[in-house]
Amino acid sequence: MFIETATRSVAKSLSWRVLATLTTFSLVYIFTGQIETAITVGGLEVFVKMAVYYLHERGWNKLNFGRKEIRPVVVWLTGLSGSGKGRLSEKIAEWLDSKALKTERIDGPSVRKLFPELGFSRPERIGHIKRVGLLVSTLEKNGIFVVASFVSPDQDAREFVRSLCKNHIEIHIASPFDYTRNEKHRMLVERAKAGEIENFAGINEAYEEPQNPDLRIDLSNEEDEVALQKIFQLIEQRMHAG
Amino acid sequence: MFIETATRSVAKSLSWRVLATLTTFSLVYIFTGQIETAITVGGLEVFVKMAVYYLHERGWNKLNFGRKEIRPVVVWLTGLSGSGKGRLSEKIAEWLDSKALKTERIDGPSVRKLFPELGFSRPERIGHIKRVGLLVSTLEKNGIFVVASFVSPDQDAREFVRSLCKNHIEIHIASPFDYTRNEKHRMLVERAKAGEIENFAGINEAYEEPQNPDLRIDLSNEEDEVALQKIFQLIEQRMHAG
Repeated sequence: MFIETATRSVAKSLSWRVLATLTTFSLVYIFTGQIETAITVGGLEVFVKMAVYYLHERGWNKLNFGRKEIRPVVVWLTGLSGSGKGRLSEKIAEWLDSKALKTERIDGPSVRKLFPELGFSRPERIGHIKRVGLLVSTLEKNGIFVVASFVSPDQDAREFVRSLCKNHIEIHIASPFDYTRNEKHRMLVERAKAGEIENFAGINEAYEEPQNPDLRIDLSNEEDEVALQKIFQLIEQRMHAG
Repeated sequence: MFIETATRSVAKSLSWRVLATLTTFSLVYIFTGQIETAITVGGLEVFVKMAVYYLHERGWNKLNFGRKEIRPVVVWLTGLSGSGKGRLSEKIAEWLDSKALKTERIDGPSVRKLFPELGFSRPERIGHIKRVGLLVSTLEKNGIFVVASFVSPDQDAREFVRSLCKNHIEIHIASPFDYTRNEKHRMLVERAKAGEIENFAGINEAYEEPQNPDLRIDLSNEEDEVALQKIFQLIEQRMHAG
């Protein structure tokens, strides 16, 4: 992060005033041939323009024309393992970045890499998602957009996260298990089905479907691009809503 | 968060150019009495000033004079319950705010209010502080200063937090137990001494003193103001260090 110091602004203002006034002085001198008139006009311009500039700024400050309030959005993607949450959330974060909005992407695997001791039992999961909620809501409070993708199978935990946020969008990625495009993933699902992995949401653990998600998307029925357009439109609405 | 749309900037630029040129036109007309000269100078000014402004901007972009890089800092206060961490961290956050730096303050009680189920056993504490580390380092990554005050008695957990951050200051508030100015606090300490409260760091639980804190402050020996000046100076150094 760079800041422009007051010294730099003062120096820049002075150098601009000198250049601008020299320009006016030269123009007047060229067209009138009178050095005295050129000096008088140039000299007066220094002060008159400062006053005009000041009034111009104050006037604009009173006008709301072209001013837009942006409210950061927390986009929460929930859905089964392999449903395509991660792929979409990457695209959403890229899109937000491309609009020069500060964006943080966060997902289960990256957080669990930091905390390998985290279990998958119901109380551990719920505690985990709640703490992620503190993270995303603190980011939101500081003007940062968040794209979070977590299986987050527990309704309670999701509601807690929503309650912490001011501008929260819940997207249910409802693609079925057989949708997954990833071979490694398919193997995980097979192993869970064989009982080798415990607490696997949708197989040997409940996935509590969101009752009123802002969007529900099934990527086995819908192209990524179409789904993304819906999501982008919803984010646009929410970031501009007063 | 408000943004100025491109439309607003265009409208503002145009209205400024009209005003500025009308000013020049009027000055020339008043001092020469020649309307033609005034029109020629004013008309030419529109184009000449735009070119001069552009060159002025480009020139300044190449100059680093007055440009300062700011790196957000994570200020971590560790110390016994009642040592004065909270009081100092409030002042530090106020000071950062007063410099128009985005700042988030976070402490044990406020986080534990959100997660009442959090215990105080060693593994619970360590897990808790590590997760706080993810929060503070994500904020730092997004350009936000953090002032965190936690007893955080475990060296491992503190080291983990430091390892996640890029620009981390550890301050050990080393005031002794009998320092506390708070009556409620004194009672807590008495109860812990009587064995009524478990896992109370410094009484029936180890407080592992930081080995190499960036600062060590004992508020029973030092006025708040003096301590704060040292802290502010250190933060200033670190936020400007390349």
